[in-house]
Amino acid sequence: MSRFALRIDPERLLSDLHALRTFGACGTGVVRTSFSKPDQASREWLVRKFGDAGLQAGIDGVGNVLGRSPADRALLLGSHSDTQREGGWLDGAMGVIYALEAARAWQEAGGHPSAGIDVASWMDEEGTYLNFLGSRSFCGRIADAEIAAAHDTEGHALVDAIAAAGYAGRPVLHLDTTRHLAYLEAHIEQGGVLESEDKRIGVVTAIIGAREYLLEFEGEQNHAGTTPMRLRKDAAATMFAHAAAIDARFREVAEDETVWTMGRVEIRPNRPSIVPGWAEFNIQFRDTRPDVLERMSRAFHETVAATGVPMGMPLPRVRETISVEPVAMDATLQSAFVAAAEHHAPGQWRSMPSGAGHDAQIFDGLIPSGMLFVPSIGGVSHSFLEDTSEADLVLGCQVFADAIASILDSPSLTADRHRTTTREEPR
Amino acid sequence: MSRFALRIDPERLLSDLHALRTFGACGTGVVRTSFSKPDQASREWLVRKFGDAGLQAGIDGVGNVLGRSPADRALLLGSHSDTQREGGWLDGAMGVIYALEAARAWQEAGGHPSAGIDVASWMDEEGTYLNFLGSRSFCGRIADAEIAAAHDTEGHALVDAIAAAGYAGRPVLHLDTTRHLAYLEAHIEQGGVLESEDKRIGVVTAIIGAREYLLEFEGEQNHAGTTPMRLRKDAAATMFAHAAAIDARFREVAEDETVWTMGRVEIRPNRPSIVPGWAEFNIQFRDTRPDVLERMSRAFHETVAATGVPMGMPLPRVRETISVEPVAMDATLQSAFVAAAEHHAPGQWRSMPSGAGHDAQIFDGLIPSGMLFVPSIGGVSHSFLEDTSEADLVLGCQVFADAIASILDSPSLTADRHRTTTREEPR
Repeated sequence: MSRFALRIDPERLLSDLHALRTFGACGTGVVRTSFSKPDQASREWLVRKFGDAGLQAGIDGVGNVLGRSPADRALLLGSHSDTQREGGWLDGAMGVIYALEAARAWQEAGGHPSAGIDVASWMDEEGTYLNFLGSRSFCGRIADAEIAAAHDTEGHALVDAIAAAGYAGRPVLHLDTTRHLAYLEAHIEQGGVLESEDKRIGVVTAIIGAREYLLEFEGEQNHAGTTPMRLRKDAAATMFAHAAAIDARFREVAEDETVWTMGRVEIRPNRPSIVPGWAEFNIQFRDTRPDVLERMSRAFHETVAATGVPMGMPLPRVRETISVEPVAMDATLQSAFVAAAEHHAPGQWRSMPSGAGHDAQIFDGLIPSGMLFVPSIGGVSHSFLEDTSEADLVLGCQVFADAIASILDSPSLTADRHRTTTREEPR
Repeated sequence: MSRFALRIDPERLLSDLHALRTFGACGTGVVRTSFSKPDQASREWLVRKFGDAGLQAGIDGVGNVLGRSPADRALLLGSHSDTQREGGWLDGAMGVIYALEAARAWQEAGGHPSAGIDVASWMDEEGTYLNFLGSRSFCGRIADAEIAAAHDTEGHALVDAIAAAGYAGRPVLHLDTTRHLAYLEAHIEQGGVLESEDKRIGVVTAIIGAREYLLEFEGEQNHAGTTPMRLRKDAAATMFAHAAAIDARFREVAEDETVWTMGRVEIRPNRPSIVPGWAEFNIQFRDTRPDVLERMSRAFHETVAATGVPMGMPLPRVRETISVEPVAMDATLQSAFVAAAEHHAPGQWRSMPSGAGHDAQIFDGLIPSGMLFVPSIGGVSHSFLEDTSEADLVLGCQVFADAIASILDSPSLTADRHRTTTREEPR
């Protein structure tokens, strides 16, 4: 098959995206949290759609929907079809339907004697019960004890949700590194970079790592009128000084792509006429490079030490609440996306990191993985307003499918998958 | 009567303080909010105690307890006997019992032919329904509409509370400037200045004024991973920068006694991984000098303008939420407190501002007013742990009573009250 000859069916693609949207539809948004009734129904629908595409399909013991090609070796394509509590219609869902459409287009183009396409919809990427439950389970990266202990925020146990859905006792499917050549996932960007630069495709270079710290300030609660400044141990004023100093220092040491956020703050008793006796805030930063994360972390600790506290007040308690290493996407898979993007949208694509976490990161060190982004209108996600233009939805799927075809056609990948990986050691 | 010859009865003083404490006692604290059952019972008890002291006593139409001397002219002494929802036993109560003890001591020392002591316990100084209700009503500084509209935080109407207590329809008593020579009030400091300097008496120079501003930041809510720094309008980061800059600038322009507090902050949605789209905080500052308040206010506005906001984000909305002018205490009354303090506790007193508001400020421009402070252990108030040593309670009352006697003995005051005022114009 010649390069860029795979043809997706735009009408079928959009029709299936809108069909999946009906499960849990809520105005312009979708509420299809993992294991909910709409989520269960959508998985049954996916099983039928995967079957119609010639895949051997079913739901496994944690709710993953897998469609297996008849070939001995396969690219694994997918994403998640569960949503946030107030979710958009494309977050996850788009990647599942792209995978399905790529599998259909590949079949319709004649397929390949020794390599096919497996399609997956992972359970609970959004972490209603357990972040990345499905992909972690598939990759053997979750302990039974963690599943046994997991609850949603209302206290419902994950194991009860699995049983209520009728998935309990089913076999749990696992990654087969002798079969699965690579994992590829398409997703909406969930940010505004592509739109702001008039790009239509993002080729993901890496899923960024993150560090998060919780800083807690223990001061002394006092009357705001009767306590002289020199006698105060004001937890909030001290926190403001630290937050501003950290922000200023990060501006100096960050790279262009580094992001940092102070998204949560609490003070007590939080009344205008009382000197706050207690305050805390979270500061997180993300980057694709481990050395940048290390540098930011050093700058953070140095700034906290240098900023200090009023006399008699203890230094802030610092706890590390998140530490996730960056995950690089496979270079050969990136090249395949780049070639297809340049063919279909010359000059309208860019390489970029993913600022959000995705199922693709779970495969790190096991099989090569790659990701493709399409633009989010206004950069909006995790919102009923999340959307992408139809033209971008179609273009993204065409680029994705063509890249998949070129990878499957590549003798290097089908002959020896290790030649496409940049990380040879499973962790 | 010779100077400093008035003798209070320490046992009677402490006994009455502890008797009043039993109304609403709750562990070491007192819960006797205005119009509550314990508050009503305590007012009946005060009427009896005032009567026993030879005063004509009763409760007026808003719940004020007034005890009137038989003389034609009188010093008015008092404070409030209602408490905060988690109140200490001395906040307000001490000043009422000091006033009663001073009246008794004055009677027992032979009194004075033409001037006596009236004693008051004002209703709802703490503002369960309406701040300074009693003293404002007595001074004619409250509108009927304000009383009609007042509710507590649970939505109970003030007028219903007045009716339920049986005070509705009673005459409302008013300040009589041909009778009342001056208003004097003793109170616990509610701060830690006296204790930190080993002083036992504070002579109040002024009740400080306050300004408070609410700053509201309107940014743009975004994903904390996928939104590059250059595209962010982070309401919280901008607020932290403003708060730190204002704090730093205030350190430069404030006087020694100026205090400022950023006691309340809110951000939305207040989650670590979401760039906050909205934030606000309150900043208040207090000083006894109107020119200092003006200077702080200018510095505040200049700093907000100079700190600025990220491109595309509107400047913070600034609303003035409090503007209270400082109230100077009468110089002659201060001198009387100083003389008595130096006699009984040489070197162990100091002049100082009141950082908190008190009923005494309501008399500003009507009759001269003065205030005396005793130390608060650990500077603690508005807390069940609020306390003052017995020695300080007795000393404070002795100083207060002797100062009252010296004022009543002063021919200048009884002959022409205007010679003791520093403010001749009622506002």
